Amino acid sequence: MILYDYCRSSAAYRVRIALNLKGLVHEQIPVNLVDGEQSSQQHKQRNPQGLVPSLEENQRIFNQSLAIMEYLDEAYPSSYSLLPEDVNERARVRALSLTIACDIHPLNNLRVLKYLTGTLAVTEQQKLEWYSHWITEGFAALEKTLAESESTGRFCHGDKPTLADICLVPQVFNAKRFNVSLDDFPTINRIVEACDKLMAFKTAHPSEQADA
Amino acid sequence: MILYDYCRSSAAYRVRIALNLKGLVHEQIPVNLVDGEQSSQQHKQRNPQGLVPSLEENQRIFNQSLAIMEYLDEAYPSSYSLLPEDVNERARVRALSLTIACDIHPLNNLRVLKYLTGTLAVTEQQKLEWYSHWITEGFAALEKTLAESESTGRFCHGDKPTLADICLVPQVFNAKRFNVSLDDFPTINRIVEACDKLMAFKTAHPSEQADA
Repeated sequence: MILYDYCRSSAAYRVRIALNLKGLVHEQIPVNLVDGEQSSQQHKQRNPQGLVPSLEENQRIFNQSLAIMEYLDEAYPSSYSLLPEDVNERARVRALSLTIACDIHPLNNLRVLKYLTGTLAVTEQQKLEWYSHWITEGFAALEKTLAESESTGRFCHGDKPTLADICLVPQVFNAKRFNVSLDDFPTINRIVEACDKLMAFKTAHPSEQADA
Repeated sequence: MILYDYCRSSAAYRVRIALNLKGLVHEQIPVNLVDGEQSSQQHKQRNPQGLVPSLEENQRIFNQSLAIMEYLDEAYPSSYSLLPEDVNERARVRALSLTIACDIHPLNNLRVLKYLTGTLAVTEQQKLEWYSHWITEGFAALEKTLAESESTGRFCHGDKPTLADICLVPQVFNAKRFNVSLDDFPTINRIVEACDKLMAFKTAHPSEQADA
């Protein structure tokens, strides 16, 4: 299994955590987003969107971090489960994950920030406000959902990390990198602290990667 | 089952198609996004993000269109399946769906367009270019993936509609609404034409809704 990866890509960070939690042996090959390697012919053959991560297994290529993680759970059902068993609980975990993966993360992606400062010529300050706005808005809803539900435990859902924590940790990493205040999100902070203690999350951290 | 809905919301449009394909009887309650009903206390109790759709069943609320559709497939396994059976094929369909749901649709959401023209004071022309840019970039990758794969059939995956077609049709509807040229995407156009012939897609169309 080969993970085409970039240390600071939060979508790749998610899959690194998932592979660690499931204990699946894999090789990592970095695709340097800052040098534009994601737009090379070679990478675009794997991933026509020119994004990371891509996962290769038995000559098959899997794209889109959430689809990759659902695949890993379905293909390796005997290893650690990224989703609970109950259908209602699975729906809750997926909704928490998608709140981050659809409604926060894509707005602050590198290609979007480049469009803002390039094509739209917004100032650095406006770019930072944009970045902060979508995280703060998304996290406010997430904090409310997490704080008010009895299903929230030590982690986003119960006392074991799930897909939702896997999406949350890289998003909080991004927020801190851009100095977005997280003071209003005590539940989110508490959960991320619990995740950060686990080896699967620690070794997936951007600073721990070969290309860091 | 109650679907909290808005006629022109593409995320709600997806769930309408899914409910139709699966033949699940449900009531629809419109939440008028233009009048700001999504920000009412009442709706935010259902959906803290202030978004549609939400699905209510047995006093439980389900949010996020993709999570809702995965739930419907898991809770009603004997009705029409929105995903293929094989794990590799499921991964492909989910990746196609997420290409739209994560990398195209969120960038062109109403709240994002409002931020662009409001806070960032971009011109109407710049807003339309932004809209068109993300659809064109996303569809270019999607067209390549669909055109080059033997797994593509009459629909995005094989000869039965899946989650991928459910995501594609509302996105193409949006593109047409904003006059984005689709001339370069013959496979996408062909698939959407095939979908448009099916009753499940027809009756889910925005113009067919009570609040249209």
